[in-house]
Amino acid sequence: MTNSGSDRPGEFALIAELFAPLATEFGAFGLRDDAAVATPPVGFDLVVTTDALVEGVHFRASDPPQLIAKKALRVNLSDLAAKGCTVAGYLMALSVPATLSIEWLRAYARGLEEDQEAFGISLLGGDTTSTPGPMTIVITAFGHVPAGAMLPRGGARVDDIVFVSGSIGDAGGGLSCLKGECASVPDDARDYLINRYQVPQPRLALGKALVGIASASLDVSDGLIADLGHISTVSDVSVCVDAVRIAISSALKSTWQDPLDGLVRAVTAGDDYEIAFTSPVSMRDAVARAAEQSRTPVAEIGRVGRGAGVMLLDEAGSEIPVSRTGYTHF
Amino acid sequence: MTNSGSDRPGEFALIAELFAPLATEFGAFGLRDDAAVATPPVGFDLVVTTDALVEGVHFRASDPPQLIAKKALRVNLSDLAAKGCTVAGYLMALSVPATLSIEWLRAYARGLEEDQEAFGISLLGGDTTSTPGPMTIVITAFGHVPAGAMLPRGGARVDDIVFVSGSIGDAGGGLSCLKGECASVPDDARDYLINRYQVPQPRLALGKALVGIASASLDVSDGLIADLGHISTVSDVSVCVDAVRIAISSALKSTWQDPLDGLVRAVTAGDDYEIAFTSPVSMRDAVARAAEQSRTPVAEIGRVGRGAGVMLLDEAGSEIPVSRTGYTHF
Repeated sequence: MTNSGSDRPGEFALIAELFAPLATEFGAFGLRDDAAVATPPVGFDLVVTTDALVEGVHFRASDPPQLIAKKALRVNLSDLAAKGCTVAGYLMALSVPATLSIEWLRAYARGLEEDQEAFGISLLGGDTTSTPGPMTIVITAFGHVPAGAMLPRGGARVDDIVFVSGSIGDAGGGLSCLKGECASVPDDARDYLINRYQVPQPRLALGKALVGIASASLDVSDGLIADLGHISTVSDVSVCVDAVRIAISSALKSTWQDPLDGLVRAVTAGDDYEIAFTSPVSMRDAVARAAEQSRTPVAEIGRVGRGAGVMLLDEAGSEIPVSRTGYTHF
Repeated sequence: MTNSGSDRPGEFALIAELFAPLATEFGAFGLRDDAAVATPPVGFDLVVTTDALVEGVHFRASDPPQLIAKKALRVNLSDLAAKGCTVAGYLMALSVPATLSIEWLRAYARGLEEDQEAFGISLLGGDTTSTPGPMTIVITAFGHVPAGAMLPRGGARVDDIVFVSGSIGDAGGGLSCLKGECASVPDDARDYLINRYQVPQPRLALGKALVGIASASLDVSDGLIADLGHISTVSDVSVCVDAVRIAISSALKSTWQDPLDGLVRAVTAGDDYEIAFTSPVSMRDAVARAAEQSRTPVAEIGRVGRGAGVMLLDEAGSEIPVSRTGYTHF
């Protein structure tokens, strides 16, 4: 763990102490080196991904620090899940404002520790620096996948089936609740939705089970329609989705005033961290087995076609206009 | 390349376009995936390191964007150099303030492109997000080293020789010049020192040549004395340095008013990005050959002893008091 920043060496020593127990001796050298070893096992590829979370953009200063830590880690693990990986470890670069308390950082480290245990990974190294701006967390996560088997975005073929795990739109509903927009929603629904927003569940077991089965795969972070758009663009195909087949939780439905408006919000909200994927029709049974084996609900929601773009269809087969908002991926 | 931030999708599309040519198809999938493959060759370890650079802390907003890009990349390559690695690629997470112009980012991308060519590496992926705060650059770099051969911090043994490459304190002198503290310094000396501050030269050829020869190694980023302190702490030894044997450039000397004060500044200034290392006495000739082979000046500056801490000695063998300032590593 490297620390830099001209003015607060004592505080940074304390931060280093907080994070040192999160690292193993093997590979990370107990964070006492400038670098770490992250060699994958023989026959496996090393897959890497990085995500930045900025206070005020990706999380709220008032969110519990443990949950911010977990979200920062899990959005990266979710990327690896969608690529079919077993997770292996992570690096963390923290830019810490002077206003942040050591208690906050202690709780943040505790959140990481809990998730390291939950996912069987450890901190490999990182960098802590001061910033005159907002808290900024950059995590780079490492995973392993059998050589050549990483699930790509670009492998969808015409006539493939489109699937998505879990229920869609819950995190967006949770964010609305946190913003005070869910006054008439039952408490248990509210809690469920907020938890879905604050603590994503990376679909690691499903992703691993889809290796050799899915033709294209990604995690739903920008919103279902936008993310299927990425598969469509990179695979050079179109995607048709039957709105009625998208799993929507009863909790989310309890927040809806207008069902059509609610649905459009759900498919554009983002932060779901479910896996959207395609597979050939011949793999339909294999997908069902992968879902069962990983104890993950998976819904068949549409088909891949010629052309370009994503269409959301109602029960009559008419297109539901979706104004794609928010996040953009490339 | 992932992009997120709620308000500026169009600008982020442009940023993605700027960075896409920096990525290869192989491994990085032309930045069109969420993750990249970074598997090392068989028989090699993958070494990873990450460093954050924050505007106003690690670089000045007025620094040329090409040079900021190069510095962000090179401080990471310098870490890998000191570990004995061949550099392989990097991930980049950018937090971009709304005030930053596309022209700035274009120049920044050009700086990366020039250095990718210079070092034979490419961008593997990354994340771009908006920030209400200062520009923050986090680069995670990957290198390869023969399995088990990464040069550690903790391998220095009693009686080992202490070496350092290049000249020490130049970057600190350059920063002083940029702050307007070098009024009476000749122009060419000033330019040389500023260049040493703005564009570090990672000692990759030397680091690679030291595999199997150096017992402990790190790059000098916090200041020579502080960094030797890290070797001392992690190796559980003491280090004695003869001040007179430390190479000081004539350019730096031209900025000195008091030689003793100048020397103490030089060994505590940081940002040198030279390699400080130790080796057994029996390897002295091998070190000389590694220096020659890599065309890198290397000076023998001291010895490893029992005990703890770093002592800087004058020609009479008396300790020169060094108040260790600035950056702290752990």
